[in-house]
Amino acid sequence: MSSSSAAQPPVFNPITGAIRALAMDAVQQAGSGHPGAPMGMAEIAEVLWRRHLKHNPANPRWADRDRFVLSNGHGSMLLYALLHLTGYDLPIEELKRFRQLHSKTPGHPEYGYAPGIETTTGPLGQGIANAVGMALAEKVLAAEFNRPGHTIVDHRTWVFVGDGCLMEGISHEACSLAGTWGLGKLTAFYDDNGISIDGHVEGWFTDDTPKRFEAYGWQVIRDVQGHDPEAIEAAIAQARADATRPTLICCKTVIGAGAPNKQGSHDVHGAPLGAAEIAAAREHIGWTHPPFEIPADVHAAWDARANGGVHEANWNTKFAAYQAAFPEPAAEFKRRVLDGELPSDWPQHVEAVLARIADKAETIATRKASQNAIEAFAPKLPELIGGSADLAGSNLTLWSGARGVGRTGGGNYIHYGVREFGMAAIGNGIALHGGLIPYTATFLMFSEYARNALRMSALMKLRQIFVFTHDSIGLGEDGPTHQPVEQTATLRLIPGMDVWRPCDTVESALAWACAIERATGPSSLCFSRQNLPFQPRTAAQVAAIRRGGYVLSDAAGEARAVVIATGSEVALAMAAQKALADEGISVRVVSMPSTNVFDRQDAAYRAQVLPAGLPRVAVEAGSTDGWYKYVGLEGRVIGLDRFGESAPAGELFKYFGITADAVVQAVKSLIQ
Amino acid sequence: MSSSSAAQPPVFNPITGAIRALAMDAVQQAGSGHPGAPMGMAEIAEVLWRRHLKHNPANPRWADRDRFVLSNGHGSMLLYALLHLTGYDLPIEELKRFRQLHSKTPGHPEYGYAPGIETTTGPLGQGIANAVGMALAEKVLAAEFNRPGHTIVDHRTWVFVGDGCLMEGISHEACSLAGTWGLGKLTAFYDDNGISIDGHVEGWFTDDTPKRFEAYGWQVIRDVQGHDPEAIEAAIAQARADATRPTLICCKTVIGAGAPNKQGSHDVHGAPLGAAEIAAAREHIGWTHPPFEIPADVHAAWDARANGGVHEANWNTKFAAYQAAFPEPAAEFKRRVLDGELPSDWPQHVEAVLARIADKAETIATRKASQNAIEAFAPKLPELIGGSADLAGSNLTLWSGARGVGRTGGGNYIHYGVREFGMAAIGNGIALHGGLIPYTATFLMFSEYARNALRMSALMKLRQIFVFTHDSIGLGEDGPTHQPVEQTATLRLIPGMDVWRPCDTVESALAWACAIERATGPSSLCFSRQNLPFQPRTAAQVAAIRRGGYVLSDAAGEARAVVIATGSEVALAMAAQKALADEGISVRVVSMPSTNVFDRQDAAYRAQVLPAGLPRVAVEAGSTDGWYKYVGLEGRVIGLDRFGESAPAGELFKYFGITADAVVQAVKSLIQ
Repeated sequence: MSSSSAAQPPVFNPITGAIRALAMDAVQQAGSGHPGAPMGMAEIAEVLWRRHLKHNPANPRWADRDRFVLSNGHGSMLLYALLHLTGYDLPIEELKRFRQLHSKTPGHPEYGYAPGIETTTGPLGQGIANAVGMALAEKVLAAEFNRPGHTIVDHRTWVFVGDGCLMEGISHEACSLAGTWGLGKLTAFYDDNGISIDGHVEGWFTDDTPKRFEAYGWQVIRDVQGHDPEAIEAAIAQARADATRPTLICCKTVIGAGAPNKQGSHDVHGAPLGAAEIAAAREHIGWTHPPFEIPADVHAAWDARANGGVHEANWNTKFAAYQAAFPEPAAEFKRRVLDGELPSDWPQHVEAVLARIADKAETIATRKASQNAIEAFAPKLPELIGGSADLAGSNLTLWSGARGVGRTGGGNYIHYGVREFGMAAIGNGIALHGGLIPYTATFLMFSEYARNALRMSALMKLRQIFVFTHDSIGLGEDGPTHQPVEQTATLRLIPGMDVWRPCDTVESALAWACAIERATGPSSLCFSRQNLPFQPRTAAQVAAIRRGGYVLSDAAGEARAVVIATGSEVALAMAAQKALADEGISVRVVSMPSTNVFDRQDAAYRAQVLPAGLPRVAVEAGSTDGWYKYVGLEGRVIGLDRFGESAPAGELFKYFGITADAVVQAVKSLIQ
Repeated sequence: MSSSSAAQPPVFNPITGAIRALAMDAVQQAGSGHPGAPMGMAEIAEVLWRRHLKHNPANPRWADRDRFVLSNGHGSMLLYALLHLTGYDLPIEELKRFRQLHSKTPGHPEYGYAPGIETTTGPLGQGIANAVGMALAEKVLAAEFNRPGHTIVDHRTWVFVGDGCLMEGISHEACSLAGTWGLGKLTAFYDDNGISIDGHVEGWFTDDTPKRFEAYGWQVIRDVQGHDPEAIEAAIAQARADATRPTLICCKTVIGAGAPNKQGSHDVHGAPLGAAEIAAAREHIGWTHPPFEIPADVHAAWDARANGGVHEANWNTKFAAYQAAFPEPAAEFKRRVLDGELPSDWPQHVEAVLARIADKAETIATRKASQNAIEAFAPKLPELIGGSADLAGSNLTLWSGARGVGRTGGGNYIHYGVREFGMAAIGNGIALHGGLIPYTATFLMFSEYARNALRMSALMKLRQIFVFTHDSIGLGEDGPTHQPVEQTATLRLIPGMDVWRPCDTVESALAWACAIERATGPSSLCFSRQNLPFQPRTAAQVAAIRRGGYVLSDAAGEARAVVIATGSEVALAMAAQKALADEGISVRVVSMPSTNVFDRQDAAYRAQVLPAGLPRVAVEAGSTDGWYKYVGLEGRVIGLDRFGESAPAGELFKYFGITADAVVQAVKSLIQ
């Protein structure tokens, strides 16, 4: 909640009327949806989008556009109405198909569906965190690329938030950081309507929100009449005037304003108004047109294409001057920001790095191998922007060229503090902004705190690299609250998430390379705390790591079984192979650092690695269930389906029976 | 951060010296651990535990004891030292075995390991949320059971929090609610030492924390010198004096105070001090005793057993008077709070409810069936305390006897607002307190926001019932951000979590009954948004639901395949059985509402339900991977391994091929 002053009703006009009409008509036609927020925020949206938002509907990907995020994503019809009215390629037919299969207008704004959608929102609180990431990306890129007299990076981030977003914990994490970072170009409009789904919020949301945001170091503008365009205009001017603090504009609004009988109640929040109330609303707001008909003059008043073209043309002129004056950073800006491409000699660089790492043949923890990979790749990729949730020294995500991002904006490493969910969602915002590739780190266990942001990363097909260290009971003494059991398995189940659990330095570097190269989705890299032995490989085997699973060590004679392993258990599989060979039993060892990637290989390759008819044993220090997909009802899985214990790692592997001997016994039990 | 005033150093004495010595010696002996927090909070702990904490070390389960939570759980040696010194059954030998296998002193405090540990902490921010739940439980039970002149429920909740807890989003959710609820008996001590793992927090934690907590409606006591016993004493007195607001005592401390060369730096946070620094610290604090030796007079000064015995005896007298005056509530208090038992006629009640539901044979959504189950069971169980994260009307968790919990404490239904993680962790606190059985609800998708609290519930073996509705693409138009795909599968992987996905009214009621009866762990109940047809059953089949999986409809002739289904897909399996029968193909349909429970059945029962050698098809509108455990490499799984889409539910099932016809085709492909 904000404060107790009441919202004044709007003065209705056809400009805002178009938003209200489209919202209530589309929700009515769909038979479901949320008319309340679009109708309640119509004036705020009108002032922002018609007077301030710097964008070009004819080119939604223009690099220096302002970013707009609807964190209260259930109010999607507000955004669809704005995109349609201002001239994006979102015809009225799409609005008529609101919430229908294969329309560009799904129930919540989905990144990649309609042009102009900057991020997928709906899961509350994440939109504001994405916006913080976008604003940070702008600041970082501005510090890196701008030169005196040449501000080629200079745009603002605007975000609408509702009560729900502000109740969610992630809003605390992200907004605290926004204050610390001094994101002066970030402006949030709080739709303070006093209503959430369960009703009036007094019973469950009594925060003094302005005071809370002041505690974060934000500029807070209180008691803005959210239906008064001039009050909104004045607040935006005040926001623009403060270059060093993000601004929260607290707008008193009436949810569903314009629906004369239902406004101000939770009845308008998440359900169609119904034909009678819509008719009454048309009367009330003076909108005489049939559903989905926008008069030409109203359309013209909204159309932002001409203005947007001027904005972009001006920027093109600026960029041309920049290119002339600073050809090298301009080329880099083009590669990273405009084209989103890796350096042209990236493949050769990876090959050289891999060869060097293979030569070293080091036995180290894979988290250390990960740090070595960062050290090798980051100098080549200034777009890599790292960070950890207060575990930099444990995750080993710092490297020699890491420079902390502070209030001045320069840098390539972010101390996120103990804020896993905020970190992952801010990382999504950075990736969405473009020009940067975020990697973010915590203990694998605390991937759970960030869980839904990982999913959103996959849903939006973003290039974010999640570094998760301390990936099993190998963590040791910190005990069951910190020892992953089911985490790798559950990450693998996120559609579109590539999970890697490398077994040594070479697999670790290749996992990093694959994650960097993957432009169409996130990757989770799971690394060990403890040392893991180096595994020798041929060049063909090194190349095969990219296929997710491969024969690391084939049977000396005719294979009688296949042992599949990942990460720290590959060494156990290799030891078991040797022990079995000593008894005259030949087995093949398959290293499977990424089941997700292996599953995408063609059937012939998969059958070549895992031949039909051979008994199979899988070993991984974690949940066993997922491995039956590979070993079948007749196979064996050695793993862990209970919580860990606090003890030195070596003792735990023995206590829980995750040993080479257990693999030996399992193989023998299958071939008898 | 709190404010800029500096911490004054302690005046050392043998009482606090014992804590510092035990902490540094145990961490040193273990070779890992966190000495910084115990040494920095020694004075705070001493004042609280020796002067205020109402407890009886001889009976750690005494019902009216104060609760103490170490939310910064990595400082576990502080708690172990306190438990040992005050006389709990935690001998010095256990402290010597800090962080070793099967000791009572694991790396983080684990509920159930050492007496006096009120909750498992370590995952930051959850301890303070547990404490909020404990304080709420006290308030609710006090409102229910106390009578004029008879305050049998009257204890306080004390919690230590560090910077990490306060950065985590969950602290926002839980502390906001604590303010709204006016939890006057909750006192938090903020260990404001300015250090987190990555170093001095200025770079990533610049909140004005006192102001933030004032915004939540807390009493905030600023700038307390955390090494000055009288300043701490005065702050506690002020906390006690405010009965209507929780209190945050902001204590300026020096991390690792007593280690002369390392204190005040992150070097003391998470690593042993080393022999040289420990020797210097002994000198510095005037502690001359060898490791793990506590002089008798120091032990005597700490021993709380005599005093605790008096506390408990006084309470026993009070309770006897209460029993005499109010025999009925006293009996209920004994059953619920002292014995933690269900009503003696519970089994009969369940049978009667099931019979009534079976008779009705209703075709309704299982979320509605869940509400009917609540309506049937709740009047019998006043200890049920419900709630939803702002989705009461969608989760259908309200019932006719639901009364909202407000500032006055009475009630049995909590409006948690949009705070899933806080809700689940508060629920854990309620369950830990005892006397109440919490059920908490949100959309299944947003189980992800609460993920690690669900795991903590399972780790602690708590009776919390998680109600997750809208359990698949059957959710429809809200689209992929709201449509579960992998969520049921990932919940099943949490060790000790029983997941249920019922197919109709009877399975829904039985899932509720099993969850209520399960005293040793949490249950997740996944319910549909859409209507599901009633399935007729014999009495034996109804009873078999309790086994997690059972033959719902056997093959008419000799079965040629088994179709396994859960929830909304059971109806598809039944339709497929009929269609196949029409073609002369007999199949068995197995309903498997809980794979977790089924997996616990003996091998004979499992083989009886799923006979060896018969081809198997599984169908579930979600991730397929986990089902290969039941169908093997040769079986088929019909499910969904991609994100959903925004569209009406019926269209989605067709579009994604989750249909009876798909089951028919799969069966045919296997038996050809």
